[in-house]
Amino acid sequence: MKFEVTILGCGSATPTLRHWPTSQLVNHDEHYFLFDCGEGAQLQLRRYNIKFQQINHLFITHLHGDHCLGLPGLLSTMHLLGRTKDLNIYANAALQEAIEIQLRVSYSRLRFQLKWHPLSYDEPQIIMENAKLQVMSFPLNHRVPCCGFRISEKPKPRNMIPQMIEKYTIPFVRIRQIKAGADYILEDGTVIPNADLTLDPAEPKSYAFCTDTAFAEKTIDAVQGVDLLYHEATFLEKDRQRAYDTFHSTASDAARVANMAGVGKLILGHFSARYHDLNPFLEEAESVFKPVVLANEGLCFKV
Amino acid sequence: MKFEVTILGCGSATPTLRHWPTSQLVNHDEHYFLFDCGEGAQLQLRRYNIKFQQINHLFITHLHGDHCLGLPGLLSTMHLLGRTKDLNIYANAALQEAIEIQLRVSYSRLRFQLKWHPLSYDEPQIIMENAKLQVMSFPLNHRVPCCGFRISEKPKPRNMIPQMIEKYTIPFVRIRQIKAGADYILEDGTVIPNADLTLDPAEPKSYAFCTDTAFAEKTIDAVQGVDLLYHEATFLEKDRQRAYDTFHSTASDAARVANMAGVGKLILGHFSARYHDLNPFLEEAESVFKPVVLANEGLCFKV
Repeated sequence: MKFEVTILGCGSATPTLRHWPTSQLVNHDEHYFLFDCGEGAQLQLRRYNIKFQQINHLFITHLHGDHCLGLPGLLSTMHLLGRTKDLNIYANAALQEAIEIQLRVSYSRLRFQLKWHPLSYDEPQIIMENAKLQVMSFPLNHRVPCCGFRISEKPKPRNMIPQMIEKYTIPFVRIRQIKAGADYILEDGTVIPNADLTLDPAEPKSYAFCTDTAFAEKTIDAVQGVDLLYHEATFLEKDRQRAYDTFHSTASDAARVANMAGVGKLILGHFSARYHDLNPFLEEAESVFKPVVLANEGLCFKV
Repeated sequence: MKFEVTILGCGSATPTLRHWPTSQLVNHDEHYFLFDCGEGAQLQLRRYNIKFQQINHLFITHLHGDHCLGLPGLLSTMHLLGRTKDLNIYANAALQEAIEIQLRVSYSRLRFQLKWHPLSYDEPQIIMENAKLQVMSFPLNHRVPCCGFRISEKPKPRNMIPQMIEKYTIPFVRIRQIKAGADYILEDGTVIPNADLTLDPAEPKSYAFCTDTAFAEKTIDAVQGVDLLYHEATFLEKDRQRAYDTFHSTASDAARVANMAGVGKLILGHFSARYHDLNPFLEEAESVFKPVVLANEGLCFKV
């Protein structure tokens, strides 16, 4: 089952020609989830051939422009290309007003519904779930209300051993129960224990997206044990004071979170425009935690 | 004196990787004027090394997203980079509300003033002038209120012949009067006629920007005799019905305006995403008017 993250933008507030503002797409079993939507996100979706009409859930961490200014253009294009399906937006309640006025002044009457889901910035909350995963929001520590998101797969059904179906002539209608853990009882009353019929399923995977934020203890709890963590690293250690003043993280802050939360792998992003060489981010983070990779536009990470 | 137009974007509403949405920069004697500000305009300004803090006047034809969605990001970046100078915005009055709400929800308090100049969509109006030029807005024929803009140089001072300054020992303080047309009177009362002291100045130049619009007689009056005309050409003749339905022009509509207005040169732009080969735009226009060029990102035209 596919579970991957494509980086559409990993720059920060001041735009550069090297990085786009924040946006990334999570594809879970061909369900598409957009996380943040900086200016130009729709172009990046085009560039990487992502069918953006398949995005039904859109999550916005906070309302600084580099995380949400691509939204009006994306909505407008979805409309122009004939979308009729609802679009769920999980964001600060204030965004709804800004988007509705933007649509009104541009004479846009969308043919599809926007379903607004206001975020809470007080405590972690499950904000969305389907049969296979759930998405939790949790507060970050930025200078404006800001949430991270954790996408966690639900426990998967056990894997049926195909030969057993044949051996015991198990009818199709019973397979689902057996995959859920049931034994199988033969006509003569013999019980075939589930352990003989199935194999353990793959472990549920999880991904967390943390931007923008200063280092915070509570983040560690929220991302505990995720397989893949994207954590902002706007600054290097030499600019720690600047990170502190602006409620951002350094590369080693991000690595401390990864280390203390015992995550599988760390992706760094949200690089300040002031740095042309990003290798020191990798070096600083790797002195605390491994494995670490640097985000870059177009990179696709398997969770 | 420099008077040139740089194309930042010449695509239309549906974004493509070939063209950016509409935006262009006019540089008149190192005064910068931005016309329309589609999503990503600030990146295009970066790409072409245009110092966008020098833009003090920004003109928005109409409020369809592909002409103005780059504005919040541009304002935010101007702020982040320390701007304190006023910025004049000439646009539909409704834009002010949308921008102010966008700034409020993103917690942005600009350190510079936005000076809003609401446009009239009833008749041509002079909306801005300085010592060397004036900008006129004039109504276009689109399905929402929309203005074109004409930038006209004022008559220039006559050119002083340097040798005459020496010959008649003309003091520096008199030069300005002579350039304005005055004769010079020697101490013995001899009148040196202006015609002996100066040469005719260059003709004042003018540029007009017409997007988005269907063909309209009134456009011809407004752009009469400009040296350079940018006119939208969203469609080809084979899609004339679509142009009619959406209040856009075909390439030959644009050429008819250029021809009937006796302009010096025509630039076509605002190409629909449906066309991959743009050469037919040139062919259709050239059958009506010459010279014609196709807009493209990064092209710079002298007026």
